[in-house]
Amino acid sequence: MSLEQMARNAKAASKVLALSDQVMKNNALSAMADALLLEKAYLQNENNKDMQAGREANMSEALLDRLLLTDARIEDMAKGLKDLCDMPDPIGQVTESWRTENGLQISRQSVPLGVILMIYEARPNVTADAAGLCLKSGNAVILRGSRSAIHSNIAIASVLKRALADTGIPTDAIQLVEDVSHEAVGELLRMNNWIDLAIPRGGAGLIKSVVSQASIPVIETGTGNCHLYVDAPADLSKALAITMNGKVQRPGVCNALETLLVHKDVADAFLPMALEALKTAGVEIRGCDQTMTYGKEIAAATEDDYATEFHDLILAVKVVDSFADAVSHINRYSSGHSDVIVTESYSHAQAFLNEIDSACVYVNASSRFSDGSQFGFGAEIGISTQKMHARGPMGIQALTSYKYTICGKGQIRE
Amino acid sequence: MSLEQMARNAKAASKVLALSDQVMKNNALSAMADALLLEKAYLQNENNKDMQAGREANMSEALLDRLLLTDARIEDMAKGLKDLCDMPDPIGQVTESWRTENGLQISRQSVPLGVILMIYEARPNVTADAAGLCLKSGNAVILRGSRSAIHSNIAIASVLKRALADTGIPTDAIQLVEDVSHEAVGELLRMNNWIDLAIPRGGAGLIKSVVSQASIPVIETGTGNCHLYVDAPADLSKALAITMNGKVQRPGVCNALETLLVHKDVADAFLPMALEALKTAGVEIRGCDQTMTYGKEIAAATEDDYATEFHDLILAVKVVDSFADAVSHINRYSSGHSDVIVTESYSHAQAFLNEIDSACVYVNASSRFSDGSQFGFGAEIGISTQKMHARGPMGIQALTSYKYTICGKGQIRE
Repeated sequence: MSLEQMARNAKAASKVLALSDQVMKNNALSAMADALLLEKAYLQNENNKDMQAGREANMSEALLDRLLLTDARIEDMAKGLKDLCDMPDPIGQVTESWRTENGLQISRQSVPLGVILMIYEARPNVTADAAGLCLKSGNAVILRGSRSAIHSNIAIASVLKRALADTGIPTDAIQLVEDVSHEAVGELLRMNNWIDLAIPRGGAGLIKSVVSQASIPVIETGTGNCHLYVDAPADLSKALAITMNGKVQRPGVCNALETLLVHKDVADAFLPMALEALKTAGVEIRGCDQTMTYGKEIAAATEDDYATEFHDLILAVKVVDSFADAVSHINRYSSGHSDVIVTESYSHAQAFLNEIDSACVYVNASSRFSDGSQFGFGAEIGISTQKMHARGPMGIQALTSYKYTICGKGQIRE
Repeated sequence: MSLEQMARNAKAASKVLALSDQVMKNNALSAMADALLLEKAYLQNENNKDMQAGREANMSEALLDRLLLTDARIEDMAKGLKDLCDMPDPIGQVTESWRTENGLQISRQSVPLGVILMIYEARPNVTADAAGLCLKSGNAVILRGSRSAIHSNIAIASVLKRALADTGIPTDAIQLVEDVSHEAVGELLRMNNWIDLAIPRGGAGLIKSVVSQASIPVIETGTGNCHLYVDAPADLSKALAITMNGKVQRPGVCNALETLLVHKDVADAFLPMALEALKTAGVEIRGCDQTMTYGKEIAAATEDDYATEFHDLILAVKVVDSFADAVSHINRYSSGHSDVIVTESYSHAQAFLNEIDSACVYVNASSRFSDGSQFGFGAEIGISTQKMHARGPMGIQALTSYKYTICGKGQIRE
């Protein structure tokens, strides 16, 4: 089947799905979950092919671990689908309704977007998660995972599609692109007639390549160069806990900390203690001149370090002269994901919330909370770092649009 | 100044504008309105250069009329700016706020988009309207009008910029691109670092060209292939009034009717009467076989006619066998702008509202109401015919994004 035919089929399926009620959609999600559990052995067998290819290609242990489908991970995928059944239907919600002077009743009602193209890297669970989120929100999905997970992804998608067979939801609502070439993605990204939105999920290179090739709308996600600024005055024990939580708990995720800024007035009190704790946790520090005076092992931070999302146990550290310097550093280098101030100053807290131009702006809390489930949205399809359509953690609500319905009694315009 | 420098300046200005309060923004809008009224003679003098060039280029009377800046039109531009002063500030509104289990207070707060690129055709009043709407919503704007209105646009923009001088709003918040080449637009449409959104306003060709060139986000606007379906049963006097209002009142606008569909059971009762009234109003009919039996002057409608936004006193007419046929015709040919059913059937009204996938779906009212001011939004920046970010008439609200602010007391993630 050609890619265009696949996209046309997805569009046709999206029209059926848009008119499907909650019961049908939830039955389908439940059938999908059951099917994953039933087919564990098959899924793990196929996953093993990817693992073997990964080992032969000398893939890092960290990447191999992300690729692996354990029993628990398959159960998590199934649970994710079951959890969606319990969420309210995001479609058909009237968010506003008003009557105009001449008696027209205008209502704004949520509708699906249509066909969503998900482009993602290694982790095969995204295949099931994205399929579930799109289905719940009435959208057809075209899944395009990475070459390294192709056997796992084909297996998961085929199990999910087969589960749709007796649910009334067309199996074309879930499609997996088996052609993992760059050309195939490029072609899909220009199918404005059939695909309504692309969501790339992965590293900065993937996102940039999608944005530059696409003529269909794109939501950029997940590039997280996140900052923590320790102000003066600040509660330094909170600052320490938030620093460690941000950098050490899960350094490979997008809401982890990448740069620590410290006001010069608290640097002597805070940095020796913080740097010691970071060192003990195995964090490599790249610091400004003043930071380097606190330890011989500290390397000099370059301009590039401040602009980099390390995704690793590395932290850039800089002492700043003022609140204003911290804000201007963050607005210059931040990827607009999540930035934090730890402060006891009311006016600095307010100014930080106002002046930092990022999706999630925190006072005295860890950036690690930037997450759909932590926000109470249930599962998330990604974290938007752009301003159009949806920003920050995106739940199923972010996969909807709206229409206006206008009910009259024969009104014409004067 | 290079285009990139212009865009960088706009970005810098947008950061000041984003933090400007209502009083400053409203003072600026008011100063802009006053300046337009004071500079009437200058504006008309410059407009005259465009009019003369238009006449020399044999521009149609209709286009020349759109280009002309009369006293009344300059007063309307000024009034539009003054009216914006009276509207609530769309920035800083908290639309949701909740506390999580661990005590984080998360708020969703409206913020500006940043820098908006407006690309538009002939009508010079868009220069002032767009500048006002963007400023009110805290956005810098880069205006790129058509070659035919270049003198008028330069004059309007320079008057508006000068009016900002003592208001605290940077004059770089309003920029006009004087280079009307295609290359210049192409360059701007790929400045992802400096421009946040492009809004093309004009014919289908302009929109398509912008979408295919842009790597920055685009909101498609204003392509209106609008339908009226007269159902059985229907109140035929309402159907007649809505038909005439849709086609005749202002045929050149995007919410005018382009195709009339009539259920076969009411065709004999409705069409002879409707076709007579349309003929009297000077409307040319292109019809299906059955429609052609109602008048010798009726030409055969082609596939193309059903797909065309005539922008003129031309109407495609088709008799359909069923409600389902009408829905499938509309979902096939509609541009997703505004579509209408006239019906007395409750279930058909409900099904039409659900099944028609357009921004504005009407029961028993004229498509001509698809308009920001008719909807109660005040002025509009355009009518979106796509699903991302904003759909249907877009007021200042559509020029905003949001951020999440998260206030804690030292929380870290477990």
